[in-house]
Amino acid sequence: MRRALFVGRFQPIHIGHVEAIKHMLSENDEIIVAVGSAQYSHTFDNPFTAGERIEMVRMALEEAGIELRRVLTIPIPDLGSHSMWVAHVKSLTPSFQTVYTNNPLVTQLFREAGYEVKPVEMFRRSELIATRIRRMMIEDDEWRPLVPKSVAQFIDKIDGVKRLKTVVSTDSPAHV
Amino acid sequence: MRRALFVGRFQPIHIGHVEAIKHMLSENDEIIVAVGSAQYSHTFDNPFTAGERIEMVRMALEEAGIELRRVLTIPIPDLGSHSMWVAHVKSLTPSFQTVYTNNPLVTQLFREAGYEVKPVEMFRRSELIATRIRRMMIEDDEWRPLVPKSVAQFIDKIDGVKRLKTVVSTDSPAHV
Amino acid sequence: MRRALFVGRFQPIHIGHVEAIKHMLSENDEIIVAVGSAQYSHTFDNPFTAGERIEMVRMALEEAGIELRRVLTIPIPDLGSHSMWVAHVKSLTPSFQTVYTNNPLVTQLFREAGYEVKPVEMFRRSELIATRIRRMMIEDDEWRPLVPKSVAQFIDKIDGVKRLKTVVSTDSPAHV
Amino acid sequence: MRRALFVGRFQPIHIGHVEAIKHMLSENDEIIVAVGSAQYSHTFDNPFTAGERIEMVRMALEEAGIELRRVLTIPIPDLGSHSMWVAHVKSLTPSFQTVYTNNPLVTQLFREAGYEVKPVEMFRRSELIATRIRRMMIEDDEWRPLVPKSVAQFIDKIDGVKRLKTVVSTDSPAHV
Amino acid sequence: MRRALFVGRFQPIHIGHVEAIKHMLSENDEIIVAVGSAQYSHTFDNPFTAGERIEMVRMALEEAGIELRRVLTIPIPDLGSHSMWVAHVKSLTPSFQTVYTNNPLVTQLFREAGYEVKPVEMFRRSELIATRIRRMMIEDDEWRPLVPKSVAQFIDKIDGVKRLKTVVSTDSPAHV
Amino acid sequence: MRRALFVGRFQPIHIGHVEAIKHMLSENDEIIVAVGSAQYSHTFDNPFTAGERIEMVRMALEEAGIELRRVLTIPIPDLGSHSMWVAHVKSLTPSFQTVYTNNPLVTQLFREAGYEVKPVEMFRRSELIATRIRRMMIEDDEWRPLVPKSVAQFIDKIDGVKRLKTVVSTDSPAHV
Repeated sequence: MRRALFVGRFQPIHIGHVEAIKHMLSENDEIIVAVGSAQYSHTFDNPFTAGERIEMVRMALEEAGIELRRVLTIPIPDLGSHSMWVAHVKSLTPSFQTVYTNNPLVTQLFREAGYEVKPVEMFRRSELIATRIRRMMIEDDEWRPLVPKSVAQFIDKIDGVKRLKTVVSTDSPAHV
Repeated sequence: MRRALFVGRFQPIHIGHVEAIKHMLSENDEIIVAVGSAQYSHTFDNPFTAGERIEMVRMALEEAGIELRRVLTIPIPDLGSHSMWVAHVKSLTPSFQTVYTNNPLVTQLFREAGYEVKPVEMFRRSELIATRIRRMMIEDDEWRPLVPKSVAQFIDKIDGVKRLKTVVSTDSPAHV
Repeated sequence: MRRALFVGRFQPIHIGHVEAIKHMLSENDEIIVAVGSAQYSHTFDNPFTAGERIEMVRMALEEAGIELRRVLTIPIPDLGSHSMWVAHVKSLTPSFQTVYTNNPLVTQLFREAGYEVKPVEMFRRSELIATRIRRMMIEDDEWRPLVPKSVAQFIDKIDGVKRLKTVVSTDSPAHV
Repeated sequence: MRRALFVGRFQPIHIGHVEAIKHMLSENDEIIVAVGSAQYSHTFDNPFTAGERIEMVRMALEEAGIELRRVLTIPIPDLGSHSMWVAHVKSLTPSFQTVYTNNPLVTQLFREAGYEVKPVEMFRRSELIATRIRRMMIEDDEWRPLVPKSVAQFIDKIDGVKRLKTVVSTDSPAHV
Repeated sequence: MRRALFVGRFQPIHIGHVEAIKHMLSENDEIIVAVGSAQYSHTFDNPFTAGERIEMVRMALEEAGIELRRVLTIPIPDLGSHSMWVAHVKSLTPSFQTVYTNNPLVTQLFREAGYEVKPVEMFRRSELIATRIRRMMIEDDEWRPLVPKSVAQFIDKIDGVKRLKTVVSTDSPAHV
Repeated sequence: MRRALFVGRFQPIHIGHVEAIKHMLSENDEIIVAVGSAQYSHTFDNPFTAGERIEMVRMALEEAGIELRRVLTIPIPDLGSHSMWVAHVKSLTPSFQTVYTNNPLVTQLFREAGYEVKPVEMFRRSELIATRIRRMMIEDDEWRPLVPKSVAQFIDKIDGVKRLKTVVSTDSPAHV
């Protein structure tokens, strides 16, 4: 059984992520989609809860015809302490051999722990960055083609764009 | 019994807050003043401890002739996780029907939880913003007329302006 | 201004507590009722949330004709670390000179910090212990006469006895 | 889409759990297996990490011919605060309509939050209790027939019985 | 440079610990005395703060003629999560090759992480157990000969026996 | 016994720190080097773990001929709450009379708690600032002469410059 970890925040999952998971499944039996920063929501960087993100990941995979039984979705709360983060991820996930990430810090931490780390080959990379998609949402730009159809519908159903616009309009220091 | 929640940080309470509480008491039997970010102090955004802020709120209300018995002051520590924040506030406060806030995030979170949220009608709003008052303190500007007299005296007694000036002069990353 | 701190869990407030607060108000201008273990609820030791406990404290004081404006109710979450607990309490409360408690640990911690600590003179002490009252609730014994009438009504309204019976019937290790 | 939540600690998953999940899937489209007390391991109550438990749950389901794509496994760390626990679970999971549990506390918390809660119909219930199975492991009793074959093999592979025996032999207060 | 870790709570350090450290220094260049459960104090299991324990460890070593420069004292707070504990210890200490402990759980955790673990050869072991010494303190038994003279003097100076007696007399659930 | 506290992050220790410790030892019997922000590592502000920093501090002192037995190195995790920070430091360290720091916030907190606070007289101050040294590392500038030789060798051994360059190249919000 070859199992790999794909670390991201998926705010939201987009078509680049979906292609990447397809590719990872061609090299592995199972993929653990680690949904990072799991405790956060209702901010610009993390508008959606971990549960909403997991729901969107599963919709996106299903829409793409990917076998859901080969993908685990595991929420991983941020820990604060980087030196313990790999131990934290390992305690919450089934064993894995490979880590896919483009994040230099995640790469560094897993390399120091002795893991094989591979870059995520993401097609149309410059366009397909979740931060950019969230900015397009705020500016009523054409974000819908960049995410799977079912994900766009889910975001509409939970009124996600309005939530995002609201939280970014908070000018004073938060007190929540 | 109509009870409402007024969410803020009150760093420090100013005459706009006092007028707002008067107005809320005309529409409700009791007001819960939720003193947010309760664990923080000794920073520019949160110079005063929750206890000092509660002491100032009570002084300000008394000075304005507001019935203290109709106002509860409850410290609410920040939680980090927005999705649990409403549950957190509810667990620390008596039941309430209405929430007063001008903060878009707080509005969003309580609306998602099904609460009625009303804006705080604040007179002389542009002037009466606590952030502006703290900046005036640092610049030795005329902040005293913007807070109740008893509050200004309390800040002097605890040497609050000096504290504020000191903490903002910390240039390197904090290690506390 | 003489202000004193009364530390307890108030699970629930009973007529002994009310008499004690009356006595404290004869010696002080204001009393801070510190509602300890504020984050806990739905257990045998802590069946009620801090908010419910604060609501009951205020009902009880009002029923006894005590001036509400002279009593502050402040939730204090447990900290875990005893050596920091006094600093924690001080940060959440207005300044005080005296501490009332019968708890030896609380006495020790405030004495080490240089505070005057006085015992709570509680009438009918052996009978009026909250733990005993909760046990009577579970056994459908006559607990109602031991708490103020308004408190008994509140507990009935929130179905508190059923909640208590339910949580104590949890036999396996909790996973919440 | 009907989705239900099955809350447990799965220390370890046994054949009673597997039968229960089969039954739940006959009433729902998807089941979220919420692996509670997720941060704990290496104790008598929680010998296995959340990751190990998730790995065993998936093995058990596969062995029983259950469609893996219809079951999500989500680790849920204990929160300490019961009053926020339902909000915590909701933030980490896709939306669900029904909760399956035999735990009275979990039942109470979800009922207070307005959820439908159903008991877990567990066949051979008295025998099939994870606590009893762990005790059998320590006493070298016949625990293997009570868990799926693949789960027994996994426990052997990670030397789980020895781990359990070791941690229970710790007589002095832990300092980890 | 051979460095070893000696894990304990040192509540308080006794003459068995001192002999053990002497022995460890005969096998290593430096010893890290990891003072576990560092955040706790004022309980029966952990009467002394980490700082007080470190002060006593250093006194004891000096009294025994041990070279202080070869011994590091590092407070290690408990983490709650066993699966991350080794990573936590490693992040707070200089690198080490060997772990000395008689605690089965600590042994298990470091062995799973690939460390060499050696038992602590403790002379007069049955007598020299810190728990037994604390019980003797409460019962005014002859505990003084079991700890170094300087440690007994320190405990007297901070009125440690009275503190211990006070905290164990707390009968109701703590709320600190 | 005169003991003083020297508070810093030591990311990394440089020759200015070493000179300062020498000076402090001329005024005190022992110095506690409090290694702040102890839980952090793998960021620009805190590239090294507390353990690595302690290892470097000891190397630096040894290289400078300072008596190691007179210097304690204690990791102090950040607490978040400034109002409890002094109590936190006190609980983790042996008693001390004086605090050395140039940080205005640390000065303010210890002064409010009644401690004597002295500035750190640092020679070649403008040059010898750890932030500046880390920036030089990233830009392959001449940082080596600014730290003790043994510290430079240690940083090379653990590939510290590469780690620092990697973590600063992380452009998207972290999710660890």
